[in-house]
Amino acid sequence: MNYKSLSRFIGRILLIEAALMLPALLLALIYREPRAATAYWQSILIILILSFGFRLLSRGEKVGDFYEKEGLACAGLSWIVMGVTGALPFFLSHEIPAFIDAVFETVSGFTTTGASILGEVESLDKSILYWRSFTHWIGGMGVLVFLLALAPRSSRGSGFTLHLLRAESPGPSVGKLVPQIRKTAQILYLIYIGLTLLDFGLLALGGLFFHDGAHPTTVFDAFCIAVGTAGTGGFAVINAGLGGYSIFTQIVTTVFMFLFGINFSCYFLILRGDVKSVLKDEELRTFLVISVLAVIAITISIVPQYQSTGAAVKDAAFTVGSLASTTGYATTDFDLWPNFTRAIVIFLTIMGACAGSTCGGAKVVRLILVVKNLFRNLRQMVRPNRVVNVRMNGRIVSESILHNLNTYVAAYVVLLFVSYFLVALDGKDGTTSFTAVLTCFNNVGPGLGRVVGPTGNFGSFSIAAKLVLIIDMLIGRLEIFPILALFSRATWRHS
Amino acid sequence: MNYKSLSRFIGRILLIEAALMLPALLLALIYREPRAATAYWQSILIILILSFGFRLLSRGEKVGDFYEKEGLACAGLSWIVMGVTGALPFFLSHEIPAFIDAVFETVSGFTTTGASILGEVESLDKSILYWRSFTHWIGGMGVLVFLLALAPRSSRGSGFTLHLLRAESPGPSVGKLVPQIRKTAQILYLIYIGLTLLDFGLLALGGLFFHDGAHPTTVFDAFCIAVGTAGTGGFAVINAGLGGYSIFTQIVTTVFMFLFGINFSCYFLILRGDVKSVLKDEELRTFLVISVLAVIAITISIVPQYQSTGAAVKDAAFTVGSLASTTGYATTDFDLWPNFTRAIVIFLTIMGACAGSTCGGAKVVRLILVVKNLFRNLRQMVRPNRVVNVRMNGRIVSESILHNLNTYVAAYVVLLFVSYFLVALDGKDGTTSFTAVLTCFNNVGPGLGRVVGPTGNFGSFSIAAKLVLIIDMLIGRLEIFPILALFSRATWRHS
Repeated sequence: MNYKSLSRFIGRILLIEAALMLPALLLALIYREPRAATAYWQSILIILILSFGFRLLSRGEKVGDFYEKEGLACAGLSWIVMGVTGALPFFLSHEIPAFIDAVFETVSGFTTTGASILGEVESLDKSILYWRSFTHWIGGMGVLVFLLALAPRSSRGSGFTLHLLRAESPGPSVGKLVPQIRKTAQILYLIYIGLTLLDFGLLALGGLFFHDGAHPTTVFDAFCIAVGTAGTGGFAVINAGLGGYSIFTQIVTTVFMFLFGINFSCYFLILRGDVKSVLKDEELRTFLVISVLAVIAITISIVPQYQSTGAAVKDAAFTVGSLASTTGYATTDFDLWPNFTRAIVIFLTIMGACAGSTCGGAKVVRLILVVKNLFRNLRQMVRPNRVVNVRMNGRIVSESILHNLNTYVAAYVVLLFVSYFLVALDGKDGTTSFTAVLTCFNNVGPGLGRVVGPTGNFGSFSIAAKLVLIIDMLIGRLEIFPILALFSRATWRHS
Repeated sequence: MNYKSLSRFIGRILLIEAALMLPALLLALIYREPRAATAYWQSILIILILSFGFRLLSRGEKVGDFYEKEGLACAGLSWIVMGVTGALPFFLSHEIPAFIDAVFETVSGFTTTGASILGEVESLDKSILYWRSFTHWIGGMGVLVFLLALAPRSSRGSGFTLHLLRAESPGPSVGKLVPQIRKTAQILYLIYIGLTLLDFGLLALGGLFFHDGAHPTTVFDAFCIAVGTAGTGGFAVINAGLGGYSIFTQIVTTVFMFLFGINFSCYFLILRGDVKSVLKDEELRTFLVISVLAVIAITISIVPQYQSTGAAVKDAAFTVGSLASTTGYATTDFDLWPNFTRAIVIFLTIMGACAGSTCGGAKVVRLILVVKNLFRNLRQMVRPNRVVNVRMNGRIVSESILHNLNTYVAAYVVLLFVSYFLVALDGKDGTTSFTAVLTCFNNVGPGLGRVVGPTGNFGSFSIAAKLVLIIDMLIGRLEIFPILALFSRATWRHS
């Protein structure tokens, strides 16, 4: 392990975090929230001191020794450090009195889970709600990708940056849009910012014209909803959740949840005029077909509970978009829907949307590959003397990707079960324990049952269970290995 | 596909089934059960006619063309044929009026699941109960293995018989005890018969001396319990289940459930005097350690509900033995135990016991290999330039076994989820739908919740759901691929 490089890295991450906290401090001053303002400058100060400390530790660093394991450890560690330090404003402002709860809320924010320990949110300071929602946006595209976008041109070998991108990017294989990684990161962030602004603009504008919701969509609300949608997070800033706003706000959010669940390279291709490739993309097609089928199936199931088919379709589409994109917003308590829809809820929670988007979950491409690989292996078993390949978008998928996929599936199942087992020690019922783990692991937010369903919260879990769920959220966001690598002795050995 | 060989095979299997039904006919005559007797001779007649028909179809068969796919299809198909024809006595005697229910009950018997559609069993004819329990014994070691044991010496190439043994034997790799497969099959059946007789003898003898149960352990009951334990099945012949018998019967059954969950090659080694290898066996050790830990954890959880610690330990040990060995007998309604124990119940249901035994489930060795493989891959990821092997009992596990294991895990997860989804269409609650699938897939028997828990039954499911569960039981017993192969076009193509 190259400890000095790691230290320098963590130092930088902390510096960025402090910078990203500045607007929250400004907001606290504008809204005249003295307690929050104090908490913010204290937090920024602590983070800067820590950053300086890590910088000192990295003195005498030799450039170059940065391999796979440094990339994994860097990603895992920086997310943990961000989760702990990002919790400081909540804790220091006493808005969330217990530190473990503050860390849970922050990790839930950064990992774009959106699972909350708060029973209600309207009593919180606006600037605190802002930071809570903004963590979604930071975590959505990833802070390491942000760092790569900012990095001076070719300061390091490309191996170094590729390892980082790989560790943080969702999906079975990392896609470089252009040969330079720095440029790829910049394009990704530009698309991300562009789509977020479009969403924000539409919501803010709609807020002026549509007043049919219990809560008006103010500029502040529009901003928080937009960053929460962009990161596929799910923290709401009013107690009623997205159901409290106008139909317009709900429909715009539905559309953007789907948009943020699509591989960003599709937008890049569209911008370049290559719409044909996008329309042919297997993952996108599968994602859309499954989504449409899920909306139809849910609508048929719930329509007897609704006064109009339109309202049922609206809630069905919103819920499918929210779960598949792993956002976790809710316009209705889907825990009260018929039993069969719960199977769909669980399926969408696990599936997630497309790789290369900001969503969590297993990603549709993994689902496709698992099924294709299964059929391939079956065919291979029946005819052992023939080589059968797995293809995706017409190209042969390499065996190493399939091998990693299998490792991922096995790790997913083992970790899911171990987590469920540990959380079950709290003595809550099976549905609660299991879906709590499932929803955290897939970075969705709400689970099933009264406790962790759309109207519940995670406050009643024990400290031990919360710790397990925090680790699950991190494991889910970083796709297992960067966090697992932290527990391996081999990672920490001097090279 | 070599259709003629397949036909000859199915014909033979049917012949054996007819022969195995003769004692049931005899019993019906002894107990003076005319309806059952009629049903038996009619069933035997139908099966013989079918057998003759298949024999005719196989005329002009060429010896030799028997490969992997014939082995897989043979295993899959013969189990389906046995399930359907074995259901005839239940249906023709009107003891189970619906044919789908009769098939469910029979497949549940042969696959050693023990899930029943019957609300009560005491009103059934004795000879019918006998056949119901005896299917467990036939399915436990497997009818193909039985056929191999009977086969004339080296009538075919060893490839032929190995494919069959492989398709029906539980576990990731088939272990030949001695070089000849025929002899291996004979030894396995001798151990099986020996242990069953020992169990039966102890139970029958105990029935003479211990009268503390609500029901005496008669010779008939002792026989049915013994064959149900040996096959790790789980059908009981009294409504109260195993809890209705004396403590002695319960304790003997606990011990034998564990014994039938151990790899039969261990008994072979012990008979040969090689106790040391048995004691060192990783799978056996892990199985015992997990079992002891599970008994302790459950005892701690349930002791407040019990009057004495001894009674709690007894029920805990019985339940752990029953679930891990995938027998599914119950002395108590574990559905009423605290929430945390449900996580243990689900874990044991999935785990199963040792490969090479009569149990279902994933088998402990797969669990060990999945975890070891996970750590190996993690180490490999951290240090990509080093080759790391997975070892079991000190020997390197081949990559092809690990590859098949990964395929198995992926197939398991996909099929489990698809089944859950289809069964959930019935509209039953999530716990019921999910654990119904889980318990059938792992050939255990009882699930969780009021409907499919230890005191419930599967009678209320729709025909479609029952069909799915029947396929799940077969998939579980044959470890996925022989059944999946039946759905592949490549299997049915002329070679």
